[in-house]
Amino acid sequence: MNTFGRIFRVSMLGESHGGCVGALLDGVPAGLALSAEDIIPDLARRKSGAKGTTARKEEDAPRIMSGVFDGMTTGAPVLILIDNKDVDSGRYLALKGTPRPGHADMAAWQKFGGFSDYRGGGHFSGRLTAALVCAGAVAKKMLAASGTSVEASVVEINGARDATGMDAEIEAAIKVGDSVGGIVECRAIGVPPGLGEPFFDSAESLLAHAALSIPAVKGIEFGAGFACSRMRGSACNDAILDASGHTATNNAGGINGGITNGNELVFRVAVKPTSSIAKEGKTVNLETGNRVPITVAGRHDACIALRVPVVLEAAAAIVLADLMLIEQKVPRVLGKEPDGGMRKKW
Amino acid sequence: MNTFGRIFRVSMLGESHGGCVGALLDGVPAGLALSAEDIIPDLARRKSGAKGTTARKEEDAPRIMSGVFDGMTTGAPVLILIDNKDVDSGRYLALKGTPRPGHADMAAWQKFGGFSDYRGGGHFSGRLTAALVCAGAVAKKMLAASGTSVEASVVEINGARDATGMDAEIEAAIKVGDSVGGIVECRAIGVPPGLGEPFFDSAESLLAHAALSIPAVKGIEFGAGFACSRMRGSACNDAILDASGHTATNNAGGINGGITNGNELVFRVAVKPTSSIAKEGKTVNLETGNRVPITVAGRHDACIALRVPVVLEAAAAIVLADLMLIEQKVPRVLGKEPDGGMRKKW
Amino acid sequence: MNTFGRIFRVSMLGESHGGCVGALLDGVPAGLALSAEDIIPDLARRKSGAKGTTARKEEDAPRIMSGVFDGMTTGAPVLILIDNKDVDSGRYLALKGTPRPGHADMAAWQKFGGFSDYRGGGHFSGRLTAALVCAGAVAKKMLAASGTSVEASVVEINGARDATGMDAEIEAAIKVGDSVGGIVECRAIGVPPGLGEPFFDSAESLLAHAALSIPAVKGIEFGAGFACSRMRGSACNDAILDASGHTATNNAGGINGGITNGNELVFRVAVKPTSSIAKEGKTVNLETGNRVPITVAGRHDACIALRVPVVLEAAAAIVLADLMLIEQKVPRVLGKEPDGGMRKKW
Amino acid sequence: MNTFGRIFRVSMLGESHGGCVGALLDGVPAGLALSAEDIIPDLARRKSGAKGTTARKEEDAPRIMSGVFDGMTTGAPVLILIDNKDVDSGRYLALKGTPRPGHADMAAWQKFGGFSDYRGGGHFSGRLTAALVCAGAVAKKMLAASGTSVEASVVEINGARDATGMDAEIEAAIKVGDSVGGIVECRAIGVPPGLGEPFFDSAESLLAHAALSIPAVKGIEFGAGFACSRMRGSACNDAILDASGHTATNNAGGINGGITNGNELVFRVAVKPTSSIAKEGKTVNLETGNRVPITVAGRHDACIALRVPVVLEAAAAIVLADLMLIEQKVPRVLGKEPDGGMRKKW
Repeated sequence: MNTFGRIFRVSMLGESHGGCVGALLDGVPAGLALSAEDIIPDLARRKSGAKGTTARKEEDAPRIMSGVFDGMTTGAPVLILIDNKDVDSGRYLALKGTPRPGHADMAAWQKFGGFSDYRGGGHFSGRLTAALVCAGAVAKKMLAASGTSVEASVVEINGARDATGMDAEIEAAIKVGDSVGGIVECRAIGVPPGLGEPFFDSAESLLAHAALSIPAVKGIEFGAGFACSRMRGSACNDAILDASGHTATNNAGGINGGITNGNELVFRVAVKPTSSIAKEGKTVNLETGNRVPITVAGRHDACIALRVPVVLEAAAAIVLADLMLIEQKVPRVLGKEPDGGMRKKW
Repeated sequence: MNTFGRIFRVSMLGESHGGCVGALLDGVPAGLALSAEDIIPDLARRKSGAKGTTARKEEDAPRIMSGVFDGMTTGAPVLILIDNKDVDSGRYLALKGTPRPGHADMAAWQKFGGFSDYRGGGHFSGRLTAALVCAGAVAKKMLAASGTSVEASVVEINGARDATGMDAEIEAAIKVGDSVGGIVECRAIGVPPGLGEPFFDSAESLLAHAALSIPAVKGIEFGAGFACSRMRGSACNDAILDASGHTATNNAGGINGGITNGNELVFRVAVKPTSSIAKEGKTVNLETGNRVPITVAGRHDACIALRVPVVLEAAAAIVLADLMLIEQKVPRVLGKEPDGGMRKKW
Repeated sequence: MNTFGRIFRVSMLGESHGGCVGALLDGVPAGLALSAEDIIPDLARRKSGAKGTTARKEEDAPRIMSGVFDGMTTGAPVLILIDNKDVDSGRYLALKGTPRPGHADMAAWQKFGGFSDYRGGGHFSGRLTAALVCAGAVAKKMLAASGTSVEASVVEINGARDATGMDAEIEAAIKVGDSVGGIVECRAIGVPPGLGEPFFDSAESLLAHAALSIPAVKGIEFGAGFACSRMRGSACNDAILDASGHTATNNAGGINGGITNGNELVFRVAVKPTSSIAKEGKTVNLETGNRVPITVAGRHDACIALRVPVVLEAAAAIVLADLMLIEQKVPRVLGKEPDGGMRKKW
Repeated sequence: MNTFGRIFRVSMLGESHGGCVGALLDGVPAGLALSAEDIIPDLARRKSGAKGTTARKEEDAPRIMSGVFDGMTTGAPVLILIDNKDVDSGRYLALKGTPRPGHADMAAWQKFGGFSDYRGGGHFSGRLTAALVCAGAVAKKMLAASGTSVEASVVEINGARDATGMDAEIEAAIKVGDSVGGIVECRAIGVPPGLGEPFFDSAESLLAHAALSIPAVKGIEFGAGFACSRMRGSACNDAILDASGHTATNNAGGINGGITNGNELVFRVAVKPTSSIAKEGKTVNLETGNRVPITVAGRHDACIALRVPVVLEAAAAIVLADLMLIEQKVPRVLGKEPDGGMRKKW
């Protein structure tokens, strides 16, 4: 449903053209210094503005509504909201009744019997990822206390793997009112061995679960991933170098048998091209049942993959923070005095 | 952890060389005709015997221990056990203290402080998938009542896509004591639109979660998947043909915005080559810390991908059965009289 | 943690003297007409003002932040917030470092290492029940669509069971700066048989779980409850009258074997006297470790039980709404057209 | 559903007159010495034999089917089964179609559309509590490692509170083919402060949830419980004696604001009289709809409360073990070497 996690639990809310988007975080350890300033840099990274990203100006000022007192988390649930400001629903009215190809419009309409908020994709909008980034920023702070960090970047756009090629692909797509897909890679360092729970909550299962919640992500692979399927075992097996489990290669992507092995965690996701394009597509009018052409005029990203890295980091950090709480690698109270005593707040 | 699902819930148990493996199923609708005969055909499909599969003879006779009365499910939890019979732990003693590269051995040892059952991978063994197949067989019967079915097959082995090529790849690997990976594709037909729950329990998230719990699976993609990342939006978007949501192409793999759209559900998983190979690999001796060569002599599959299809079907069926219960497309009591009345058992 | 439920899921947030309290509701069926007006009457019932309730004026204006579009639920999560307005934290500063006897202060301080928000009990305040009432109001609307309703009332105050006696008990306590406890009874009519899931999610287990989350509730009993323990079986067993399961008496309180039996649902909770009292109590100063007297000067309820009925109704309605979704007695889309078709919004 | 807990998770299975009952335990720390001998003493305490308990001889030999290797838990799921041996279903055939008053028969029949196993109550039988006792025995071992223990006893039978009176009540009931109820009290010592999670997973909520899953339990109260409702705040509030939170009295039963406060944990449950009695009751014939008298001839307990203590201990231990894992008071690997290193099994 809208909640994910076992101890550190993230619940999502909001709509693209409603009043706000947000995330409610449960299980955040007490004693973590937290303010909007911890979140803003990640929100800025997610922001539009670069070539290939939407012109919608998202003044994403996160508001921490609960769970923080005197600048520190209290152990109570943390609600973070971002108001929707630069909303322009007008042009979506034109789309009323004509679901956009490649979008959630049609499926949402079927699921919710016509009651879903169709403006800008409503709850299915990529706008929700701003809330995920907020949750991720908190998770990253939890991980940092244990020396763990995550970092993602775009490694491929429409097949191009270098900056010039990527740029050219985006440029070419923009010219014809089209969009392009890409691949984003995420790496986590300082991940302790032993994270992941058999049978179902393998580290790969949970990371995939979270990553595939991100709109536009259509695939995920760990380590060598799909390339493994074209390897022999002798090439794919990572030679073990020492009793700490370090390996010579990392085809496993840091996970064996669903459990982290202490090596770098590596995975990649496939991001499809933005569905909303100026180029004409084909759909039906839901009232008449007639097939009609469709052109999505709004302000859209030509390459949504450009905005995915910080979102994918958030997904990864959320999973790792929860697994570390389960495995007791992150304590439930941070910020203890050096002598181990409780902070003398009272 | 070891349980997955919200209404239809599957819990896994057992070890490769312990007494049994099994699955405990909660939320099975009452009134479903169920016997071991419903499960045996799928277990037979999983079985070894073909070229490239292990010589271990798994006489997999599922025993239904609870939840069935007079041949019908009662609504109470269904426990299915498979005894381990042809167990040969002897040769694993030689491996004691030397974790096999590519296996869960090392990660499990680290996670569970040396207490994990190392014989044949213990709880991390592919043997557990026999239990998953049992759960899948029950899920398939639930789906069948609603006209939904799943079917998986091997579509690639070490890069080869036709039967001759696949065969040659396996043959060549066997000759040198090596193994090969492959790709398995799963399709589900008759999937109603509207399955999947925003934000986190997208149909893709749940299917990936379950599929990546299967040992040796290192990646998953939906519809065109990674190929989407090399498409333009105009090519990737599936044109909508009618008010039922049928599309001209199926690059989305039957899922938009995380919600099934009524088209065929299509996804593929990357299966790595079997880690246990006769060919020499490198590991460490955990007692001495010295690097040592390792050869895994046991009876192993040269191509574990060959046995994955029925397991992947099980994972998919489990997810779909649960989503259909949540969406109320499968009732909680099946087997009602034609007049809608309750069976006159009492 | 802060979330409860399986399909209809309620998450709580907020603090007594922070910016707001609130509830995030997942799994609300689409197509339910919902506005603040649906919630305000229940919030008014919870309000202070009567003799024996606090002078704190809680201008509880619920704001629906997400999940509603054009006055109807969309199927997306519904966030409801209530701003805290009449907050007077000043007098709590005097209590800093001296945990109030009978309160969560000490336990929260121990759990959260001194980081909990101590002002007015923070997240542990009875103020949170305003958010629960919001969730309950939504649940009641879901139940109403199926002809189910819940109703609670105070049946005992400090042992007195009639209005005059209750009034006298409160009056007498107020005079000496003390408080009194009471018993609140909840009844639900129109509850379909078959709600509750064996083994652990019995209807009694879930109702008790929710009810005992309400601050100040220290016990719960179903039907004849503790009186059953002083009965013989022949007196306690409810004679079955017909094939619909109606019974001559209702000592079971509408639940047998954890499953609702179609009769009226009846349970009672014990509410302890308000812990915050003007009368002097004994505590310690956490900094010095010295024992000190304590007098809680704030605006408090002399009889918190008076405000519990609508809160208990909320807890019951939340549980029943979830069980009815699980049992498919409430559909996932309400508000369908008479012909069963989907609303022609698009 | 049939699973309870967050980290330490217990799933129940089985039927009274099926092949077995059992419990599947997930999240058991690795490195716990465990054998059937650890469980048998508690099963013996639950056993029948004393005056007022059934003549059914339950040769309860627990079989540990998974999760234990070389006498130690491995961290994998632990399945414990107890075969049903002394089963006499014959006399239940006479009851076919006539639901026993006070039993789950009718509600189960309605819920599961006539497919429930009616023999001896099927999955709703008190027989299931043997499985709960197995789970409890494991939980107790986890708690013992942290110096925490639970102990329950019968404190009242049909209103009598001393041994002679209790005995007389049972004797009198047996003579007339009737049964009596009682009250069982549970105490836990060595419970660390800080257990319980706001808002919903208060220690009281979870203990009540588990306790009310036990068949025949109709109420629960913590500390002074219902007596609190007849107290003034000045009498009910427990004076705090020191900075560790010790209190002069324990009306709170060791829990404030849903969080354990370090004092003794105390709660009581109301156990109704056994529903199956020889004395004639009234029911209907489900096939004819006619009202018919009913006499339950089987071997039954005249006072089921006598067998509840060890079951209630199990419920309490299960909850506490889980809360201690969540709060990181029980590690995920026990049995470490004195130097903190991992056991040198490999």
